[in-house]
Amino acid sequence: MDADEPDTEAGGGLVRVRLDLTYDGGGFAGWARQPGQRTVQGVVTQALEVLVARCGPLTVAGRTDAGVHALGQVAHVDVPTQAWAAIGDVRGKLSGLLPRDVRVREVGQVPAAFDARFAALWRRYLYRISDAPWGVEPLRRNDTLHWPRSLDEEAMQTAGTALLGTHDFAAFCRRRESGTTIRDLQQLTIERTGHVLEARVQADAFCHSMVRSLIGALLAVGDGRRSPDWPASLLALSTRAGDVQVAPAHGLTLVEVGYPPDEELGNRAKSTRTLRALPGSA
Amino acid sequence: MDADEPDTEAGGGLVRVRLDLTYDGGGFAGWARQPGQRTVQGVVTQALEVLVARCGPLTVAGRTDAGVHALGQVAHVDVPTQAWAAIGDVRGKLSGLLPRDVRVREVGQVPAAFDARFAALWRRYLYRISDAPWGVEPLRRNDTLHWPRSLDEEAMQTAGTALLGTHDFAAFCRRRESGTTIRDLQQLTIERTGHVLEARVQADAFCHSMVRSLIGALLAVGDGRRSPDWPASLLALSTRAGDVQVAPAHGLTLVEVGYPPDEELGNRAKSTRTLRALPGSA
Repeated sequence: MDADEPDTEAGGGLVRVRLDLTYDGGGFAGWARQPGQRTVQGVVTQALEVLVARCGPLTVAGRTDAGVHALGQVAHVDVPTQAWAAIGDVRGKLSGLLPRDVRVREVGQVPAAFDARFAALWRRYLYRISDAPWGVEPLRRNDTLHWPRSLDEEAMQTAGTALLGTHDFAAFCRRRESGTTIRDLQQLTIERTGHVLEARVQADAFCHSMVRSLIGALLAVGDGRRSPDWPASLLALSTRAGDVQVAPAHGLTLVEVGYPPDEELGNRAKSTRTLRALPGSA
Repeated sequence: MDADEPDTEAGGGLVRVRLDLTYDGGGFAGWARQPGQRTVQGVVTQALEVLVARCGPLTVAGRTDAGVHALGQVAHVDVPTQAWAAIGDVRGKLSGLLPRDVRVREVGQVPAAFDARFAALWRRYLYRISDAPWGVEPLRRNDTLHWPRSLDEEAMQTAGTALLGTHDFAAFCRRRESGTTIRDLQQLTIERTGHVLEARVQADAFCHSMVRSLIGALLAVGDGRRSPDWPASLLALSTRAGDVQVAPAHGLTLVEVGYPPDEELGNRAKSTRTLRALPGSA
């Protein structure tokens, strides 16, 4: 790390640590720690506490719901400087401590200005659907939705493309949050390989259940219940659309989170906080 | 079906039925029915018997071991003609009867000369390995082996290519069978995508544990314990090589089985029986 990079001390003898996580959401009651529930945050915090005795709360880029998976989730946590320095091979030790359904791809010290949630530029999700009449490939049944009717991926793509851009996605947000529901939908692609459709959805951020609501609306287009212009017509609504179904959790995977270069981290986090009063909070 | 195709009556008021199956082997004690064990043959036979009351034994292209998966397994079975005709949507009904870890992609009547095992021209398997230092992607942990040392896929490919062709693979067969261990290895490719290596192996047929022994030998080459010419040097042996490790079952998937056109089915089955006295039987 260069000498002129931001100070990595988070203050009070703490260092800020970034974790890149991947997990199978099937065995978790979501990301957020809850008493008596097995959660990703809980399991990772427990493993960290074995290594550093105590640590701050884990802050995450995308608070995944129960059953939602991650390939490239990002979190940060502040840990005592001395304990951190003494660990050695942190990733290896965490791998040994964690169950097989959650893995740490990367872990390391970052500038104190790094904030997994507020410094993120964008999040990208993948939703997998099989419309095979016989069901879902058994080896992928835990991350693929079975749709019992055949889907028209071109109609779904047309509907998805019409949603791109900066809009108020209130119709697709499960509950109204304290802040705005305006989001910038940057990518929505539908790709078919045989019986499997993969939808990739990227935005600056997502409000609660937004990806699954978008997919629910596209499924209604795909199997012919709705016309391709219906999802975009909902952008005129200022509250949740009751006739948009939320697609099941297990088809959804958080794939990647984008961040600016280190020197822009502080500004990004500040502007995010200003633009959106805590979007994504439960 | 054309009038001049082979008679589809298997005799005695029976019709021959082909099933194309896919399963997650993790919950099965292998293909072959065993008392008190959950097996693919047992589960599929049970579902069939609900529909046709009684049926002959299921004959399979590749008798997968406990933990081995299938994307494109093929089996045949003889069922009473009248019961068969009365079912209607066989695939739909089987889908409803079967557990989610085994699915029927296709099912239908075939010529009586069709033999899932002896008429097969080739079998193709896939073996998945992750040499990521952090382990295996959790969503793929059920069909991917974690290898704790980094693998040289070029050395593995060199070793694999040297095994191609018709040889006595006795060194790679777990137990000597009554017949020959001469096999025609038609394809062996190693492809890396990031941390994941996919080995594709195709032969006319495989003796018991042959794919997993080939992979075990290639892993020894890949992590530098053996030279790339070592696996092919074992082809000179007439019995099993004790220093070849059998790679774990869960990384292995039967991908596809090839058959000749209907009019050549009978000849193929006859010539297979002549060449190999029951290879692949347990």
